[in-house]
Amino acid sequence: MRHFVIVSHTGAADGSWSLDDLCGAAGRVDVLCRALNSAFFLSHGIRDDVVVDLVFTDPQRPTTVRFTGAANRLNPDERSLASRIQKALRARGEDPWFDPSETGIDVAPFGLDGLALDPARLVLLDPEGEPLESADLPEDPVFLLSDHQPFTKEEYAALAAATRVSLGPHWYHGNHVVSCVHWVLDRRLQTP
Amino acid sequence: MRHFVIVSHTGAADGSWSLDDLCGAAGRVDVLCRALNSAFFLSHGIRDDVVVDLVFTDPQRPTTVRFTGAANRLNPDERSLASRIQKALRARGEDPWFDPSETGIDVAPFGLDGLALDPARLVLLDPEGEPLESADLPEDPVFLLSDHQPFTKEEYAALAAATRVSLGPHWYHGNHVVSCVHWVLDRRLQTP
Repeated sequence: MRHFVIVSHTGAADGSWSLDDLCGAAGRVDVLCRALNSAFFLSHGIRDDVVVDLVFTDPQRPTTVRFTGAANRLNPDERSLASRIQKALRARGEDPWFDPSETGIDVAPFGLDGLALDPARLVLLDPEGEPLESADLPEDPVFLLSDHQPFTKEEYAALAAATRVSLGPHWYHGNHVVSCVHWVLDRRLQTP
Repeated sequence: MRHFVIVSHTGAADGSWSLDDLCGAAGRVDVLCRALNSAFFLSHGIRDDVVVDLVFTDPQRPTTVRFTGAANRLNPDERSLASRIQKALRARGEDPWFDPSETGIDVAPFGLDGLALDPARLVLLDPEGEPLESADLPEDPVFLLSDHQPFTKEEYAALAAATRVSLGPHWYHGNHVVSCVHWVLDRRLQTP
């Protein structure tokens, strides 16, 4: 299982935005859509062994939207992925893991705290970390990525136990990181 | 210089489509937008050393739209990238390399033939090729990628001289390939 957690610092968690304005009123939901695209799509199918949590940190309405590999009616483009996110955000209630459309897209009324991620599985990108290609990774890793804004000090503190891995000195967009992580992990599976 | 050529077999080369329907009437222009995103964007800037040619093979209106690193007013989302493609397609005339908005996005009235790519620089993805990580690549490589449809027999024949490199047995989306290629080439530059 490969698990990606994408933290959105600006996303409008009430879903009250237009699909024509993902970069503006939606608060950069386009960034989340591209991460979903990289996490799930192969040329001829959907990766089954993937979970993605989109964490909206809005303090008035902390919300997590969870996509699993079972959500196999996804389309790869930003607009249609945003529509699925929006539907889940609008259906958010007070109970966790409600699946409004019954397609493997669940919503919960909490952020990182409520996810209670296993510290031993956490992986963070860090230029000072071990190179991704050779790093000793936890089984079933949980890769944590931020949107276009860096993690806050509080978030970093909460993730202090994470394994640190490096892609080198460049800072890459989250969706590019997800593509490279998948490819490196695919390569490992191909090497006996 | 890193050069990517993305061949669109279904793109509507007259630009007569809505930005709300990139996957439908536009003929999967969303695929091209994601390739542009992966080709140009770093977290805090645009890659200057990149050229991307989007080749529309429509036999009635073969067209190439060329983005260079100088096109530095790009936004990373599909909708705004599609808008830039559309503007260039609509401005296509009979003369090559017309830049309608004077922002480093040029259009030409020909497809792969007219590009006259140097065979010694061509690189194709091929599961039987050398692993990308260790392959002997040409200087200033030109990576050729197809959209959601494979290259035609005629296209493959025209690209027969290309160096073949492999990302492994999976078939990845073009934008994921571009992300991995950039990262591998970045890594090579970091290793003395």
